[in-house]
Amino acid sequence: MAREITKNKDITEGKKRFPNWKMPYIPERKLTKYQWLVQYASKLKLGKYSDIGAFTYINARNGVIIEEGVQIGSHCSIYSYSTIDGEEGKVVLKKNCKIGSHSVVLPGVTIGENSVVGACSLVKDSVPANSVVFGIPAKVMRKT
Amino acid sequence: MAREITKNKDITEGKKRFPNWKMPYIPERKLTKYQWLVQYASKLKLGKYSDIGAFTYINARNGVIIEEGVQIGSHCSIYSYSTIDGEEGKVVLKKNCKIGSHSVVLPGVTIGENSVVGACSLVKDSVPANSVVFGIPAKVMRKT
Amino acid sequence: MAREITKNKDITEGKKRFPNWKMPYIPERKLTKYQWLVQYASKLKLGKYSDIGAFTYINARNGVIIEEGVQIGSHCSIYSYSTIDGEEGKVVLKKNCKIGSHSVVLPGVTIGENSVVGACSLVKDSVPANSVVFGIPAKVMRKT
Repeated sequence: MAREITKNKDITEGKKRFPNWKMPYIPERKLTKYQWLVQYASKLKLGKYSDIGAFTYINARNGVIIEEGVQIGSHCSIYSYSTIDGEEGKVVLKKNCKIGSHSVVLPGVTIGENSVVGACSLVKDSVPANSVVFGIPAKVMRKT
Repeated sequence: MAREITKNKDITEGKKRFPNWKMPYIPERKLTKYQWLVQYASKLKLGKYSDIGAFTYINARNGVIIEEGVQIGSHCSIYSYSTIDGEEGKVVLKKNCKIGSHSVVLPGVTIGENSVVGACSLVKDSVPANSVVFGIPAKVMRKT
Repeated sequence: MAREITKNKDITEGKKRFPNWKMPYIPERKLTKYQWLVQYASKLKLGKYSDIGAFTYINARNGVIIEEGVQIGSHCSIYSYSTIDGEEGKVVLKKNCKIGSHSVVLPGVTIGENSVVGACSLVKDSVPANSVVFGIPAKVMRKT
């Protein structure tokens, strides 16, 4: 029940912020008009009322799903493929989750519904719903 | 007195680096010629001899004042409004302060005159003058 | 001998990823087609099969040498000159080293052959060959 209330509130928040939200044009490996960037854009699924910050980079090679109402800060990296260590795996950002500025999400990670990732975090492991995580690497700090 | 000397030295440094400093053209939510970006540009007040690094993002919705001689590194975020946690508040970067690469300054923060924020810091609280701070969150480490 | 094997494997990896690698056009202080940026571009030496991530910034004022097969993640900063603390010094990224997303490399640093810098690291000191380092500041964690 508590979760239900939170969810509804957040959806309202997203709709309030962007009542006229429209799917942005996402060119391949070029800056969108909001100054974020996607590689393998055809494999990104972007939900309504989502908000992605400037200078954020998304590598969707193995699939990135961003659900409704998700907020991503500036300077984040969302990797479904990392050439540094060869890791691969779909990334899922569930409804109404929020990712703070300068955070990095690694391949295979799912961020749960309504969860919040603090700024400057490195997310190596999936995050359950309704949780607040942060740190390098990110750890669950509390429940919302 | 010590502060006065530091201040003068730093102003000289700024003038020396940019003897022909001119107010840059700052388009709304588009990259400047120096590759940094401002949202709510009409609410940014930018001082002379200031230097802002590439890929830095400034959200000036609640006002951002950058005084004379301020240096901001690359990949910084200066937020007077954070959609992640709903915080709002004017940000003031006082004369000759310096902010290292990849640092995040949150709403309501004032960075004092001549102070230095180390790279990769998360600044949640205001910083007094003539101080060196760093860390996530940033803490005062010493006086200059 | 072990090092030799690693090196050969990694060169193969670079050639496999970019069999038709070509030297990119690097304009002065403007984004390349891959969305990274160099200042003092004439002082950057870029090796074959290298890969530089989006939103990475390189200040080559005192020389930056990137050898063959080097991988640099997104949102990195490579500084041969730092206006924040006045440090200056050539940066050398040796053959097949890898630098994770959001890492900062400071003036005078050499990253050794085949070494790996973890994401979100601040590299103040040179890194020996065949090492894994990370942290703020980065420290050697193990040998590869």
